[in-house]
Amino acid sequence: MGLILLRYGEIALKGRNRPLFLRALRRNIRACLREHGIQGIVSSKGQRVYVETEQVAEATAPLQRVFGVVSLSPVTEVAHEVEAIVNAGVREALAAGVKPGVSYRVQARRSDKSFPLISPEINRVVGEAIYEATQGDVDLSRDADVTIGVEVQRDRALLYGRVLRGPGGLPVGTEGRVVALVSGGIDSPVAAWLMMKRGCGVVPLHLSQNDAETAKTLANLEQLKRYAYGWEFRPTVLQHAEVVAPALAALAEMREERWSCLVCKHLMLRRAQELAAEVGADAIVMGDSLGQVASQTLPNLRAISLGIELPVLRPLIGMDKTEIIEIARRIGTFDVSTRVQHACPFLPANPITGGSVAALQEILEALGPILDGGAP
Amino acid sequence: MGLILLRYGEIALKGRNRPLFLRALRRNIRACLREHGIQGIVSSKGQRVYVETEQVAEATAPLQRVFGVVSLSPVTEVAHEVEAIVNAGVREALAAGVKPGVSYRVQARRSDKSFPLISPEINRVVGEAIYEATQGDVDLSRDADVTIGVEVQRDRALLYGRVLRGPGGLPVGTEGRVVALVSGGIDSPVAAWLMMKRGCGVVPLHLSQNDAETAKTLANLEQLKRYAYGWEFRPTVLQHAEVVAPALAALAEMREERWSCLVCKHLMLRRAQELAAEVGADAIVMGDSLGQVASQTLPNLRAISLGIELPVLRPLIGMDKTEIIEIARRIGTFDVSTRVQHACPFLPANPITGGSVAALQEILEALGPILDGGAP
Repeated sequence: MGLILLRYGEIALKGRNRPLFLRALRRNIRACLREHGIQGIVSSKGQRVYVETEQVAEATAPLQRVFGVVSLSPVTEVAHEVEAIVNAGVREALAAGVKPGVSYRVQARRSDKSFPLISPEINRVVGEAIYEATQGDVDLSRDADVTIGVEVQRDRALLYGRVLRGPGGLPVGTEGRVVALVSGGIDSPVAAWLMMKRGCGVVPLHLSQNDAETAKTLANLEQLKRYAYGWEFRPTVLQHAEVVAPALAALAEMREERWSCLVCKHLMLRRAQELAAEVGADAIVMGDSLGQVASQTLPNLRAISLGIELPVLRPLIGMDKTEIIEIARRIGTFDVSTRVQHACPFLPANPITGGSVAALQEILEALGPILDGGAP
Repeated sequence: MGLILLRYGEIALKGRNRPLFLRALRRNIRACLREHGIQGIVSSKGQRVYVETEQVAEATAPLQRVFGVVSLSPVTEVAHEVEAIVNAGVREALAAGVKPGVSYRVQARRSDKSFPLISPEINRVVGEAIYEATQGDVDLSRDADVTIGVEVQRDRALLYGRVLRGPGGLPVGTEGRVVALVSGGIDSPVAAWLMMKRGCGVVPLHLSQNDAETAKTLANLEQLKRYAYGWEFRPTVLQHAEVVAPALAALAEMREERWSCLVCKHLMLRRAQELAAEVGADAIVMGDSLGQVASQTLPNLRAISLGIELPVLRPLIGMDKTEIIEIARRIGTFDVSTRVQHACPFLPANPITGGSVAALQEILEALGPILDGGAP
């Protein structure tokens, strides 16, 4: 039977809520294994979570996408005897490629305080044995090419030479629900992913302007779904013709097309708020950055939220485009988002850049019942 | 006379607003030089900004803190003749430490299309001369240890071997004003910095609970000020005894201490909104992350904004604590923030974690005129 050790970070700080977070983490890890048809037993002990499975190789990549997991290591389990530990340490070092010119260090942790050697002594004896077997370069700093981890527990010792990165964050589902406005573009899927990372169950809401962009949106959600273990995406797709078109037609008649973007976004926030009430969400997520396009100004952000009572979360608001793209690449949405892009066909020639709340209010009042899908 | 070449990123995408952003960038660069007593001439041409100065060494570190600057390079200016370029290229390579075992590449750009060599030819002749002089390792990929840049302009050629990183973002002042709630802790200064990075003029607002934390807050603002070239911080400091204490005393009488944190934050948002109206700010910035402490829940975020009309920007909302700390270290606030910390003395034993809007509304109504600083 193989064993994988998973490390969590912030959950460890949760004080009396820690059992709650740990339970959610174990539940999401089980959902991950189940989704990939992997048989495994999930348990937690001390500051670690363990997955016992025959399918270690298949399990690592999916487990690297479970939020709350900071890192993980496939481990070798041996008896908690010095000789067994030393031999396993040498095997791990050889497997990790330690040799002349490759540096290594040993890092022991001892939860069994009755073990005859203390941690620095374990480091020394295992380190010396590795040197004899490999002639690798000893490097006690963090810069060592290979770190051989040793965890001496009461009834066993665990050794590992590889540390694989997890996504960090908090287990999905521990921080409530949010409605996320998503499109086929680069930004909004990243914003939704960041809120999933912070433990939110994301309910996607999309405004369909054409089939191609909607297909891209759904493909983006497929990418995000790979991180949503323990949570089921149920996207809501609204049709532009029904939700926004009547208002835009009325604006055109009023010769106020320059308000189109703000009215469209405001309408989407209204729909998002309605959906939030239905699904029990407490916030709306948008992919706005500041100043990325001419209409992403502070006055416009303010105007579109007119009368919206839910908090609007904008996790990208302080990021540069290059930083957003970096995340999009990492989570697999960038390639989808940058397929042939269909610019919004309703973009006015001179969109408002400093929309005042009062002016938008007048426009909305003039539009009247059209905003709720009624007749003008 | 020495020369520094500065590169900007997103500003290049600004379309017809580009001259506006460039003017702000040049203005902030001038403010930076002035603040450090550096004589220099700032100009822009093509996709570059240039600083001509006798004090290149003194200028580089401050210029690396001007938002909008993606990177900068001290450059050597030579006549735009092949021989002069080749000689300067060799000098730059030697100065940058190219030798056997150190890899290099040459990257030429040619804005003077009449120059006798095209860019790949310039790369080749300069690269070969460097090889003859240094026997360094040729590496045409991005992984080269040293990149020798060559920019052939109409009347001169510029060469550089060092590329120093700037903070990116947009010039401070181009994206309006925000009121930022700041404390002596780790998060809120990072949130304020991120909004400065996106071009906002930040107006700091601090609630003083004790002198030590207020001193830390002001020390944090000193660190942020190093990035605020072209913008003057004018912090507003409110006294807990005046702004919050009466409401907390009333809560204690009502035996509703568990609402203390929410009422305190709500009061600060009210004051922030008043200050925003005075200084012409369009948003409020807070350092909230999600789930970092028990009271940072979605329902609580929603409840504290009750009746607040300005958008509340939370640039850290999608970040892990480790990511926030990484930025804090980079911008110099971490060491200040982690000096002896004084926990809030008014923290109740059981703060509300799922405050409903309706329940907070009742509490606020019961508190009545106390909220505005009046008598109960």
